[in-house]
Amino acid sequence: MTNNFILKNENAVFYECGYSCDNLVFLNLKGEKFLITDSRYAIEAKQSVKECEVIESSELFKEARKLIRKFSVKDIIYDPNDFSVYEFGNLAKFGYINYKKRLNFSKKKRMIKSSDELEILRSAAKFGALGFEKFSKFISENGLDLDEKELFFEAENILKDRGNLGLSFEPIVAINENGAKAHALPSDKKLKNGDLLLFDAGVKFKRHCSDRTRTAIFDNGLNFTKDQNFTGKKAEIYEIVKEAQNLAIKVVKPGVMACEIDAVARDFIKKAGYEKEFFHSTGHGVGLDIHELPNINQRDKTILEKGMVFSIEPGIYIEGEFGVRIEDVVAVSENGCEIL
Amino acid sequence: MTNNFILKNENAVFYECGYSCDNLVFLNLKGEKFLITDSRYAIEAKQSVKECEVIESSELFKEARKLIRKFSVKDIIYDPNDFSVYEFGNLAKFGYINYKKRLNFSKKKRMIKSSDELEILRSAAKFGALGFEKFSKFISENGLDLDEKELFFEAENILKDRGNLGLSFEPIVAINENGAKAHALPSDKKLKNGDLLLFDAGVKFKRHCSDRTRTAIFDNGLNFTKDQNFTGKKAEIYEIVKEAQNLAIKVVKPGVMACEIDAVARDFIKKAGYEKEFFHSTGHGVGLDIHELPNINQRDKTILEKGMVFSIEPGIYIEGEFGVRIEDVVAVSENGCEIL
Repeated sequence: MTNNFILKNENAVFYECGYSCDNLVFLNLKGEKFLITDSRYAIEAKQSVKECEVIESSELFKEARKLIRKFSVKDIIYDPNDFSVYEFGNLAKFGYINYKKRLNFSKKKRMIKSSDELEILRSAAKFGALGFEKFSKFISENGLDLDEKELFFEAENILKDRGNLGLSFEPIVAINENGAKAHALPSDKKLKNGDLLLFDAGVKFKRHCSDRTRTAIFDNGLNFTKDQNFTGKKAEIYEIVKEAQNLAIKVVKPGVMACEIDAVARDFIKKAGYEKEFFHSTGHGVGLDIHELPNINQRDKTILEKGMVFSIEPGIYIEGEFGVRIEDVVAVSENGCEIL
Repeated sequence: MTNNFILKNENAVFYECGYSCDNLVFLNLKGEKFLITDSRYAIEAKQSVKECEVIESSELFKEARKLIRKFSVKDIIYDPNDFSVYEFGNLAKFGYINYKKRLNFSKKKRMIKSSDELEILRSAAKFGALGFEKFSKFISENGLDLDEKELFFEAENILKDRGNLGLSFEPIVAINENGAKAHALPSDKKLKNGDLLLFDAGVKFKRHCSDRTRTAIFDNGLNFTKDQNFTGKKAEIYEIVKEAQNLAIKVVKPGVMACEIDAVARDFIKKAGYEKEFFHSTGHGVGLDIHELPNINQRDKTILEKGMVFSIEPGIYIEGEFGVRIEDVVAVSENGCEIL
């Protein structure tokens, strides 16, 4: 086995050395760490990296090859999703190194979060939740007759907190039937009393992501708590999703397989008669990337360990009518899990 | 020569068929066009594509291989920067097709803009300029003592025009010495009277980019016209950059080489004694991507043709003091160029 590896993905590199930018190569050779970047970033990189040598170069791969030769290593691990065919061709052009493919190499390393990372993820979740609260106040006061595009624009602004926070992804703000679309772009549809609003959003704090979804009823105001006053079919479906999420969260603990968490939510929804209307996985790992490991789906056999962090977000989508999804991020603890 | 090609890049695919999303493969096989995407996007894709068959599949590359077999093609062009090692391995796994590498295949096709594209790029530039004007009004009224982060936040909001426009890139809003950093992240530095402000920003209209930079003096107000009232060294440098840009724009016409445009700006700055302080290229192509071809640098020997669109943006950067850059996007016309 080799411990040598090469990375290019920004979050993967940040995880290794505490710094990242959009033009770099990171190498770990016989335990020594190197970050190669160009003159635009070199000064900032030198001030930010931990236990890592910064090399300034405009030809990243040429410099990487030079370094690899210097260390006389034979094997280097890389993630085949981390390099384009062109980049890899440039890196490996002299052919005397054995580059070993390891898909999701960095994401696997990052699956169990340290206590420092957990602290940051907790803060990210707290700031994310605060964004939901502020957005609910905004909607309560000004939401009537605003369209999805305007709500989306306000949601982004509120979440960003005047530039203090980043966004984990573009928020989803969907009214009624638009909430049933897996891929809902904000439309001109206006918010009216009695409407259902699905809001899925996350912020980035110290590069770490939060992720949360609430489905709420707007009726001269709105709140994003889990207690909602829907009526009829909406109420029925809402309670099923809420209970599916609740049951799935309850079984999270070390030793359980990721797919078992998915099964708990899926089986409950299936028994309620909406198996086909829940067409995505129950959750995904969350950290520096918004989609990390483990996957909480029907196939992932990862055995949960303390420190793993992932979303639990079952949903039921009635095409042409409405969609309901409820999502929280949890961290596996000693005997169960903590909702972030 | 083969006309068969495969694409994955969003803008490259949009150029071919008028639709794009973040999970697709596009194929042109013997003149027939196919877009393969998953169920989230298939409906929207079918409504939007022009002269192209949409195939819904969750396994894009498997579907692509099937299609390639069906058409019995032997050669397919691809851009090695468009596919990761993993993706290409999946695509080419049975090895009986000759995949031909063509770096920048799509960007080369897109170098000369049609009259429809020029019309869109003109509108994008107009909306971008309007954003500069609105931002200058905001700064004039509220800018004093705001820090770069707050200015950045406002700039983004103003440019986006309540969600009607996208951003070509994250704007650069840099005060004095921060304008001399090639890679300037917004800081806590506050705007004061007498300060120099460098503002580089662009919007996206119908997916096409605008790009513009102005350097201005803030003195109980600010404007982003090219006539500025700097004094001392700032005035000297500002006038050099302004004239360098002016001279470069004047020599743009069909038949001239891209590197000759660069040479005009660079030689003028060199003669003024600031060769080392102008450390980037004079410009870059602009279109669906913010960085297209041709490159207006010392090496690009592309012979300019009518319909090519690129930025002209010389700059001089005095480390620790200030930076000046002036940028416009031009379109090559019959006998010269049009400033967008």
